[in-house]
Amino acid sequence: MTHPKQIHIAVIGAGGVGSCFLSQLAWLAKNQQSARLSLCYLATIDGALYNRDYADIDIETALPTLEAKGSALPSISDTIEYLAGAPHKVVLVDNTSSGAIAEAYPEFLKRGISIITPNKKAFSESFKLWRDIFRAAELGSSMVYHESSVGAGMPIISTLKELVQTGDEVTRIEGVFSGTMSFLFNQFSPKSGQAGKWSETVKKAKELGYTEPDPRDDLNGLDVARKLTIMGRLAGLPIESPTSFPVQNLIPGELQSCDTSEEFMSRLHEFDDHMEGQKLLAERSGKVLRYVGSIEMSTGNVKVGMEMFDHMHPIATLKGSDNIISFYTKRYGELPLTIRGAGAGGDVTAMGVTADLLKVLSQMG
Amino acid sequence: MTHPKQIHIAVIGAGGVGSCFLSQLAWLAKNQQSARLSLCYLATIDGALYNRDYADIDIETALPTLEAKGSALPSISDTIEYLAGAPHKVVLVDNTSSGAIAEAYPEFLKRGISIITPNKKAFSESFKLWRDIFRAAELGSSMVYHESSVGAGMPIISTLKELVQTGDEVTRIEGVFSGTMSFLFNQFSPKSGQAGKWSETVKKAKELGYTEPDPRDDLNGLDVARKLTIMGRLAGLPIESPTSFPVQNLIPGELQSCDTSEEFMSRLHEFDDHMEGQKLLAERSGKVLRYVGSIEMSTGNVKVGMEMFDHMHPIATLKGSDNIISFYTKRYGELPLTIRGAGAGGDVTAMGVTADLLKVLSQMG
Repeated sequence: MTHPKQIHIAVIGAGGVGSCFLSQLAWLAKNQQSARLSLCYLATIDGALYNRDYADIDIETALPTLEAKGSALPSISDTIEYLAGAPHKVVLVDNTSSGAIAEAYPEFLKRGISIITPNKKAFSESFKLWRDIFRAAELGSSMVYHESSVGAGMPIISTLKELVQTGDEVTRIEGVFSGTMSFLFNQFSPKSGQAGKWSETVKKAKELGYTEPDPRDDLNGLDVARKLTIMGRLAGLPIESPTSFPVQNLIPGELQSCDTSEEFMSRLHEFDDHMEGQKLLAERSGKVLRYVGSIEMSTGNVKVGMEMFDHMHPIATLKGSDNIISFYTKRYGELPLTIRGAGAGGDVTAMGVTADLLKVLSQMG
Repeated sequence: MTHPKQIHIAVIGAGGVGSCFLSQLAWLAKNQQSARLSLCYLATIDGALYNRDYADIDIETALPTLEAKGSALPSISDTIEYLAGAPHKVVLVDNTSSGAIAEAYPEFLKRGISIITPNKKAFSESFKLWRDIFRAAELGSSMVYHESSVGAGMPIISTLKELVQTGDEVTRIEGVFSGTMSFLFNQFSPKSGQAGKWSETVKKAKELGYTEPDPRDDLNGLDVARKLTIMGRLAGLPIESPTSFPVQNLIPGELQSCDTSEEFMSRLHEFDDHMEGQKLLAERSGKVLRYVGSIEMSTGNVKVGMEMFDHMHPIATLKGSDNIISFYTKRYGELPLTIRGAGAGGDVTAMGVTADLLKVLSQMG
């Protein structure tokens, strides 16, 4: 069987998600028949690999080849020029969390280059960038998909878009949107059994690799706020930025002046009494403490922070570092549509990217 | 803005799901810009409404117009001829549960007519029909989508397809696939509090409209078996039919000879002691009774029936008539990807159909 069409794939980033995506892309190139997938560009922080004539790069050996003999990293505008000159349609897969690349999405899209990404920044910075991105996609007849920007590979973005696009009325979105926060609070405020102090819980999570290298990047709540910004905008709220609504910062005021992650971790025990108090308050009313985000559509209220949940509430029953997201809508009525599972990890995040690629391929005539 | 393309929509069935779909279609025709949706055919058991020249039928008044002045229902082959002669691409939306129409899907598809349906029969009868349907779609370059055949509007089919198509390895699928069974067992075997006898629970469910007009159509387990057949096939198992694996029939042997639903309901109390015994067995080990289906991919084992679940298990925490479906996969690891919510009801089932229509539209160049 001959392939009906050829699609160029450009990949930026080969970290945890990016390297998993390259494996999935290699598998996909062999196992789907709808298009011939041709890798024409791979870039990491160290350099880039591409051929002036857009000849295929072998996907399986691309990363070691780049490391051995990649050229200097081109500027973003040179990358756009290169990709816009390709003989077939191009899909850029941005597996970085770079703000600079996100800022350039409108330029890529205007030039007809479709974008797939788990990069939250493009969709959670200024509302202007959000509008520019989707307008540019219209202008360039290009597509932009970002399933993995919320809940990794779980069908969160696609489900919300379907609810809206089929005319349902979303009334409330609520959930645990961070694998790190999920792990921390499932450990710190369990439904039964003993738990350690807050600072010990954070230390353990860091050692197990559940936090960013600097745990303050999780504890400030910005990651959750970015996800809520994306969900709220998709649901129809013109949220200006992830700092334009209340976000509870779990870096206590006294420790905000810490210069290093080490200093912060060594002083975090000063916050233990406060956190213990919050947990006891929950326990006294038979509840547990969780770090959640919610969007109330009728009022436009978005908030992120600690809340208390009854033992029977699905949010209280989370395990490990799972995420849970509930959609309350007019059609679903009193009981929400709820999706639950791993919301972080290289392989499941890359799977969301790969699934988006399948959607884009199916729409490329 | 001018519409870039016109798509003909043919709708069969205007019952609970079909009438909700017509409302959603009317909304969609006004609120999306990707295509001009033109209703060219509407059929119910009473007759059909269509114009020889394929002129638009007003969606909002279609049903009363059909009732007032519809013509006789054409044969299936005449319907295929009519639709295949349309000047634009055609999507048939089959909102019936008709086996005869399901049998004709390959003919529609071969003639280039795409199909969207919640009709389980087409995908859960013989494995031959299943293969014929997907081969015919390839031959006819047509599409076939059936999200609402399992879990109504919830993203169950699309999620399973994505897991498979991105190269994940599904190891186990488990869940409560029937709103009726969910309601019956959540009432009959609650986590706490008193519950009535089995026959009373069934009677109450029937009165509240949670069962089919004849509750035996739920209690025989065939509806769940059909859904498991569809899921298993999508995951890669060549399941021959919904009767080719063990399905626990909750119509007791002694009552299988009942002629009428009334006779069955009046004698169901004879089964109360047996069901009470099953429930007590569960309670003695601190568990509840639920009616579930599961697919074990490594062995190919598919089964449907009553099982006991620990109070903490997500299946034990279901409420109302909610469905829950868990996907255990290699990438997701120990904790599954779980989707939970309303798995029955006209509006949410129609929403799955409408969402499929959006997918088909996005792929029609």
